[in-house]
Amino acid sequence: MKQIKGGITKVKGFSALGKFIGIKKKSKKKDFAVVYSSEVCNAAGVFTKNEVKGAPLVVTKKHLADGKAQAVVINSGIANVCTGKKGIKDAEYMAKLTAKELGIEQKNVLVASTGLIGAYLPINLIKGGIKGIKKQLSKKGDIAKAILTTDTIKKEIAVKIGRITIGAVAKGAGMIHPNMATMLCFIGTDAEFSSGELKKMLKTAVDKSFNMTSVDYDTSTSDMAILMANGLAGKANKSQFQKALDFVCIELAKKIAIDGEGATKLIEAKVKNAKNEKKAEVIAKSIISSNLVKTAMFGNDPNWGRIMAAVGYSGVKISQNKIDIYFNNNKIVSNGVGVKFELKKVVKEMKKDKLLIVVDLKEGKGMATAYGCDLTYEYIKINAAYHT
Amino acid sequence: MKQIKGGITKVKGFSALGKFIGIKKKSKKKDFAVVYSSEVCNAAGVFTKNEVKGAPLVVTKKHLADGKAQAVVINSGIANVCTGKKGIKDAEYMAKLTAKELGIEQKNVLVASTGLIGAYLPINLIKGGIKGIKKQLSKKGDIAKAILTTDTIKKEIAVKIGRITIGAVAKGAGMIHPNMATMLCFIGTDAEFSSGELKKMLKTAVDKSFNMTSVDYDTSTSDMAILMANGLAGKANKSQFQKALDFVCIELAKKIAIDGEGATKLIEAKVKNAKNEKKAEVIAKSIISSNLVKTAMFGNDPNWGRIMAAVGYSGVKISQNKIDIYFNNNKIVSNGVGVKFELKKVVKEMKKDKLLIVVDLKEGKGMATAYGCDLTYEYIKINAAYHT
Repeated sequence: MKQIKGGITKVKGFSALGKFIGIKKKSKKKDFAVVYSSEVCNAAGVFTKNEVKGAPLVVTKKHLADGKAQAVVINSGIANVCTGKKGIKDAEYMAKLTAKELGIEQKNVLVASTGLIGAYLPINLIKGGIKGIKKQLSKKGDIAKAILTTDTIKKEIAVKIGRITIGAVAKGAGMIHPNMATMLCFIGTDAEFSSGELKKMLKTAVDKSFNMTSVDYDTSTSDMAILMANGLAGKANKSQFQKALDFVCIELAKKIAIDGEGATKLIEAKVKNAKNEKKAEVIAKSIISSNLVKTAMFGNDPNWGRIMAAVGYSGVKISQNKIDIYFNNNKIVSNGVGVKFELKKVVKEMKKDKLLIVVDLKEGKGMATAYGCDLTYEYIKINAAYHT
Repeated sequence: MKQIKGGITKVKGFSALGKFIGIKKKSKKKDFAVVYSSEVCNAAGVFTKNEVKGAPLVVTKKHLADGKAQAVVINSGIANVCTGKKGIKDAEYMAKLTAKELGIEQKNVLVASTGLIGAYLPINLIKGGIKGIKKQLSKKGDIAKAILTTDTIKKEIAVKIGRITIGAVAKGAGMIHPNMATMLCFIGTDAEFSSGELKKMLKTAVDKSFNMTSVDYDTSTSDMAILMANGLAGKANKSQFQKALDFVCIELAKKIAIDGEGATKLIEAKVKNAKNEKKAEVIAKSIISSNLVKTAMFGNDPNWGRIMAAVGYSGVKISQNKIDIYFNNNKIVSNGVGVKFELKKVVKEMKKDKLLIVVDLKEGKGMATAYGCDLTYEYIKINAAYHT
């Protein structure tokens, strides 16, 4: 497997576009995108477990029911969530117009919206935006930028495994505590798989990546990850493909964590030697989600007591007196008790833009890594004044 | 029931002291306290569910096993958590010295410590502090101040029901997301109850108050709430007593929420007409724990979409299209969709130091209220530099 530059349009048959259609009035940033495959794809998706679901999810799930998709139409700025029946109608209308313009079936168009909850889509702007998309689709289409909201960096990746390519794009910076799926993520491949195979592989990859990421413990109403395979490059080795797909999703998850609202650094929490993998996952997510751990990491403060507390309240039974903790390679805690360490050296490590916290439970062979970021003044600033 | 000025020493037979013994070197604030009842009390406690437990909890639970207690010795500044066998020995030694000085049984002395995790108690300072406590105990003993850490206000309350008095003192401002019990809280009464009755009543009150409070989703390793009854005022009506005890705990919980680290306002989330009370509780806590809700409230921003999201990811099945939301008395959401409201008027309401969020699910008769606070720059400041 080899990483290459670019994103989803690196995949055979896939093209995209990203443009400004007037939704993000103030910033004038791109707010509308389309991904398109020249062939109908086998496809699968995973979606938020939030009981409050955006209208686009309802429509996309329905359109994915037959395991087929050919295009995704996306807008940023307004999430089309909590918009009742009108919201569903609007999302379906987006699919209809897109299908007509592209000359494909309406049920093969998926819909995604991200941004403010509770506002209706400016449907005339969207109608205007959809006009002429067929000609605008290209290998250079800037979808990665057009789906962002409070994100500050584009999140895309592409890898090759022999003749097979996987390309993907994602967005997410706040309201990030995925449960089943996450944020928006669109993955394309020219490998040939059934939609059942795609679903299983996508779930495996998402569980290791997006579902192990947290910015603020808030699970979004609009999370979706979609995998589309058009088969143009033929059959692929399944285990190699899974490995590459895991890599793609984990890299995007890290990009989301490092771009967490206000974040200054990526925090990886690796839990080793738990009784099993599930328990390791729960503990790793507990650490990465703790406001107190996150503020200490922002302050470059090796306050490991907060990590112990987060391990302890995760809900998993542990043996407090067996736990070792490391910051990068520096041992901080041994058998549940703090060890003397060189404060200056550890603080210097913590000032880097990536910090690895390792928790060794010495109870079994379960291992998991979670991805998060620090909690800063900037997060408060961004979120105290997002709406008004 | 009538609220009176003062705290735990308002109860017949109870005296206390609070003083500086040298643990909080920098601030020179009071850091040591004792509560004492002239008679041996029937007593009960509830404790943190955090798997990482402070040494004082281990000792206190052991000493409470017979349902009896006569004194509590408390220090602030250092929590004596993650201190291994030495920590347990230190906590037991604190009880031993206190018992000797007061001329009571060691197993009737409870121990509590609050502050930094991972440091050993400065046992010589504590030894010095315990010397002479018998003479220092009085009705004016400033326990409420001596048990504080990052708290900015004292938290005490006393009520009378006829001849019976209940008095209580608590601390807590950060690492507040109680699970079973909370922070430190000591409640005394001169009513006569068995320790079994006390335990049941305490659990009922704690479930409605401290267990419904969150500052930062971080469950402490040192949580404990203790109820001691010396019987000096004789038997009491149980349901009246329970009502008064609920009131005492809820008022203290509110004081903890409003004094949440960096908080500028108290937020009460009231969930009405849920399928049952338990479901209402889970949803109310989900709202009060959301960083995104908390930052929006800090910004006086009626961004109700974040409340909908927090209701949705609570884990409780709900009907999104039935939900109404109110800020104080202003309806913001009707049947899951935003309604037009006077922005200026609502923002003015939000600027008050107390905000009530009401969520009406229209599904049953379950009701619960949770207590929390906003998330501010000051929280980050306090917690990015607590240790070093």
